[in-house]
Amino acid sequence: MTFELKERDASGRICKFTTSHGTVTTPTLLPVINPNKMLIPPKEMRKRFGTEIIITNSYIISKDDRLRSQALEHGVHHLVDFDGPIMTDSGTFQSYVYGEVTVDPLEIVRFQRDIGSDIGTILDVFGTPRQTQAEAERGVKETIKRAKQSVPEKGEMLLACTVQGSVYPVLREYCAHKLSALDADFFPIGGVVPLMENQRYSDLVRCILASKRGLNPSKPVHLFGAGHPLVFPLAVALGCDFFDSSAYAKYAADGRLIFAWGTEKLDELSELPCCCPVCSHYTAAELRVLEAKERTLQLALHNLYVSFAEIKKIKAAIAGGWLWELVEQQATANPAVLDALRELEKPRNLTWLEQQEPTSKKTALFYTGRHTIHRPTLYRYHTRLLRRYHPSYSKTVILPEGNKPYSVFYAKEIRSILMKRDAQFLVRSHLGPVPVELDEMYPLAQSVFPETVDQETAQYVNALFEKYVRNRTILDFHKANKKITTKRTRKEPLNMDLLRISAVADMQFGKGAARALFSGELSIVKSKKTGKIRTVFCNGDHILSMRAEDGLFTLKIAGGRRLLRSFKRPSLRVVIADDAVPFVREGKSVFPQFVREADPSLRPFDECLIVDHQDHLVAVGRALLTRTEMQAFRHGVAVKTRESEQ
Amino acid sequence: MTFELKERDASGRICKFTTSHGTVTTPTLLPVINPNKMLIPPKEMRKRFGTEIIITNSYIISKDDRLRSQALEHGVHHLVDFDGPIMTDSGTFQSYVYGEVTVDPLEIVRFQRDIGSDIGTILDVFGTPRQTQAEAERGVKETIKRAKQSVPEKGEMLLACTVQGSVYPVLREYCAHKLSALDADFFPIGGVVPLMENQRYSDLVRCILASKRGLNPSKPVHLFGAGHPLVFPLAVALGCDFFDSSAYAKYAADGRLIFAWGTEKLDELSELPCCCPVCSHYTAAELRVLEAKERTLQLALHNLYVSFAEIKKIKAAIAGGWLWELVEQQATANPAVLDALRELEKPRNLTWLEQQEPTSKKTALFYTGRHTIHRPTLYRYHTRLLRRYHPSYSKTVILPEGNKPYSVFYAKEIRSILMKRDAQFLVRSHLGPVPVELDEMYPLAQSVFPETVDQETAQYVNALFEKYVRNRTILDFHKANKKITTKRTRKEPLNMDLLRISAVADMQFGKGAARALFSGELSIVKSKKTGKIRTVFCNGDHILSMRAEDGLFTLKIAGGRRLLRSFKRPSLRVVIADDAVPFVREGKSVFPQFVREADPSLRPFDECLIVDHQDHLVAVGRALLTRTEMQAFRHGVAVKTRESEQ
Repeated sequence: MTFELKERDASGRICKFTTSHGTVTTPTLLPVINPNKMLIPPKEMRKRFGTEIIITNSYIISKDDRLRSQALEHGVHHLVDFDGPIMTDSGTFQSYVYGEVTVDPLEIVRFQRDIGSDIGTILDVFGTPRQTQAEAERGVKETIKRAKQSVPEKGEMLLACTVQGSVYPVLREYCAHKLSALDADFFPIGGVVPLMENQRYSDLVRCILASKRGLNPSKPVHLFGAGHPLVFPLAVALGCDFFDSSAYAKYAADGRLIFAWGTEKLDELSELPCCCPVCSHYTAAELRVLEAKERTLQLALHNLYVSFAEIKKIKAAIAGGWLWELVEQQATANPAVLDALRELEKPRNLTWLEQQEPTSKKTALFYTGRHTIHRPTLYRYHTRLLRRYHPSYSKTVILPEGNKPYSVFYAKEIRSILMKRDAQFLVRSHLGPVPVELDEMYPLAQSVFPETVDQETAQYVNALFEKYVRNRTILDFHKANKKITTKRTRKEPLNMDLLRISAVADMQFGKGAARALFSGELSIVKSKKTGKIRTVFCNGDHILSMRAEDGLFTLKIAGGRRLLRSFKRPSLRVVIADDAVPFVREGKSVFPQFVREADPSLRPFDECLIVDHQDHLVAVGRALLTRTEMQAFRHGVAVKTRESEQ
Repeated sequence: MTFELKERDASGRICKFTTSHGTVTTPTLLPVINPNKMLIPPKEMRKRFGTEIIITNSYIISKDDRLRSQALEHGVHHLVDFDGPIMTDSGTFQSYVYGEVTVDPLEIVRFQRDIGSDIGTILDVFGTPRQTQAEAERGVKETIKRAKQSVPEKGEMLLACTVQGSVYPVLREYCAHKLSALDADFFPIGGVVPLMENQRYSDLVRCILASKRGLNPSKPVHLFGAGHPLVFPLAVALGCDFFDSSAYAKYAADGRLIFAWGTEKLDELSELPCCCPVCSHYTAAELRVLEAKERTLQLALHNLYVSFAEIKKIKAAIAGGWLWELVEQQATANPAVLDALRELEKPRNLTWLEQQEPTSKKTALFYTGRHTIHRPTLYRYHTRLLRRYHPSYSKTVILPEGNKPYSVFYAKEIRSILMKRDAQFLVRSHLGPVPVELDEMYPLAQSVFPETVDQETAQYVNALFEKYVRNRTILDFHKANKKITTKRTRKEPLNMDLLRISAVADMQFGKGAARALFSGELSIVKSKKTGKIRTVFCNGDHILSMRAEDGLFTLKIAGGRRLLRSFKRPSLRVVIADDAVPFVREGKSVFPQFVREADPSLRPFDECLIVDHQDHLVAVGRALLTRTEMQAFRHGVAVKTRESEQ
């Protein structure tokens, strides 16, 4: 099995998951195949929806003599006529629905192995939301015990060990942590169906986050029983990779259509609000008068078209960097999901989410409502602003409000006073305080906010602003021009470019980066077309380039040397094994297996220093994984090497 | 031509629009057909998307010798090979894009008539957003002049007279008003393309609302040049019936895909976030390598699949009563649309929107964010609460917060104190103050709010609450039980049912309705299953029924008699022509042609009294139109008769 991270956004990711029956791109959906009654054959699913992996139930197969003997003789792939990866469930959910099941925890694992399941599931103990913590803990302990006993039985099969723990985050995290220590391959988050059935999405978020905190980040995570696209974007943003849908068939049999925003009854729809092949072929009235079996089939097809389209949308959102926008938009479909988003704002959760959040995206940040200001990207900006950026001025001029801070810089009036300043110039923007030097840096210039934000955002941002300017002398904007002119002592015009690169360097690499990088004779080259900074030379060395799209620096090896001298271990570093050094020196990327240590404050897409164990600079590059991920993943790329030390 | 309102929600509507070439259900989209280059033949559009009406350009036809002679000889339907309704444009937009066009305003109308266009458009003067008010006014006056001159030329053709007026609401309303006075059939709102191109959605909303205020509500309204589904829900909610799309082809040629939330470049999409037949057949990579012409065709098909699916979604939303939900959700896709929603909250606009807002819906009201509290439905509830409902108690007990006001009523503790009350019991809910007597009435029990609303909503609702309880003695909830017991003088247990029917009657029919309806010996019949009030008898007469789904009354004839006696003309009345009286007495519905006068405060789906010119009660019924609409429409139903006076 390999599981390789290819793209990422929020705490979500696009991965390649390879089994002996082929490769699957996650996030994805496993349609549940009932071996007794295949509404849509798996092969047909592959053709229509691009289904790459399915799930069927080993408990049902094992309890039916005919299915059991067929599966044992010819394998589960033959039984359901699908040659791609097949996951099997163990009967845990049946035990939840129907009470005690007559199945032995180890027998069922062996059975799954013997019928050739690609991913077999342990018989975990379903934790219900009504359990007391003590009851839930007993279930968790039994689940862990069974997982331990199951591992030696798995053979070639990948083993899915389900995280339980009812609604108790501490138990979820504990269970996830214990299971991660085993030789397990796949981690479903179980016991969440009753939460989704009762729209307890806040609890669902708590369960997912606690489980993710305890899990090995390099292993696939499956939200067991989640088949409704309403929760897909949120669950993916929190790090879930797999979903399974029996809903497509159940809802179809019940005359219901699945949509991204919820479920609608065919009988209550005047029009089919959809363009899938089914809804393009039939009207609602035509579907209603179909013969029952055919109608169920058509509704099931619709349900899968919509569900897979949502998966594709999420993948497009991850690749494009708009997953949080999708999460927030989707949440407006259901007040209970809106409530659940508040969980993400809690400090512990936000801190965790910030760790995985990329430092730059391909798409602008769009405001959707009160949740937007609490996105990890903005939380990071606010935190770094308070901790990393300390201009030497004690005076501050607050510029008029504007939701596009970069535009003010070009206002003639402001430019004239900026040129002769000895105060910090600060924009009171919808995103928070923005020193004008930072106005081209992601996410400031790359944000689209409405002209008027909601009062809650305004209050939040205002409080941040007050915190930021506390203990500073505030000069009146309209009088600033005069005041600054009279008080100025320096004669040369102030260098706005130097201010800009210093501010960005400190925000991007940490406090003191500007001093480390820019000591010496500076030369700044700008784009002739846009007038924006392109490259920075110091003492003749090309140390940095500034990217036009996000206003952040690309680090060159000469800049890396300077940072290495000034920043102590482990800051900014990824320490690699000695045997990897020659390859990285040749420009090859750093694979996670060769990472020995890394700066825990590195974030995805951060520039970093690649060093050997003696802290000699080997190269500079772009981190694609966090430290935790680098230490966990066995495949893929940890750091994309940019320039090597010769 | 007939234009008949069938269903409605917000200020939007589903209408049947009949021309000599067939019937069209609105809202709908007219794909723009370029007679020189038909990317997708109209017949194919009908088959694939259910396209019912198309638009082509008479200016282009008239300027091309071959097209011109073909069109004049065989008609425009033959020219584009489509036997459904065809609308033609006049060259106005060409004049905007390319400057002065060499076309005579009357010639082009005659030409459209002569080629058999179903709907021909006058050569209006395109008002650009940059115009001064004086410039825009000249354009408006010229447009009105040309419209006047064009009317006598129209023949059998329906004439579309375009509302102009740049970004000046006063001019828009004036223009609309003047055009409505002519014998015109169809009203495009013109000059809005530059607003949409520059994402000036607030201006767009102002233009639509001002135009709608001035227009005859019984005529179809077309948002000229609006082809992107991003604006469809909002524009429909404001009363637009038609859109036209040239975008499907233009964007396709440019490699762009239309989605409900915006536009994406094929080259930048890793996945196709869609389940239309095109996106179900191809992957993004496969589309990219198609031969250019075929790729353009496939993208155009996708664009129309998505655009028509959005139209279907809007129609489903109108029929289901969730159009505002759709508008608000769609707005989160673009901060400029979120800004535009604020226009709707302005008192003048909200007052206008409230007039068309149905008094009850099939679907619960869902909170999506800060905009929700300003929906016309809630505005109406708040207004009526302050004006119509005056309980006699001077004391008020505020019940603990709860977002489901109806649930508190059943709490044992509360019920016990309610039973011996001499104070008003009020819930401080997310929707505003809710007297417990009203807790089953739409929209209170039919609202789904999150547990925590945004601060802006909370503040708004809090201010309302303070206004409502001002000058009242507030008793502490926890001490209320005791206090009320000691202060009570009455001996019989207080009748909660009477409180409930009185409160609902006053809120629904107006202040004094309870006294009018319930003077006499009351008998209240409840559902054995749910315990809810079903029917109310007074002195043995069945006067009212209470609907389980919305907690509002259905008026019976005996109740109507009581209201007639107590409410002065024109309150609650629809006055019908004498010749309609016998038919209505037989139970037939009231057609708008027979409405002589009506209460301006009647709202769609309000119960009403149908009277003759001497104010004799003919029947009671349910108003489907507002007074303005009753006076304007020529077709459809004004009041659905429920029970007639014998």
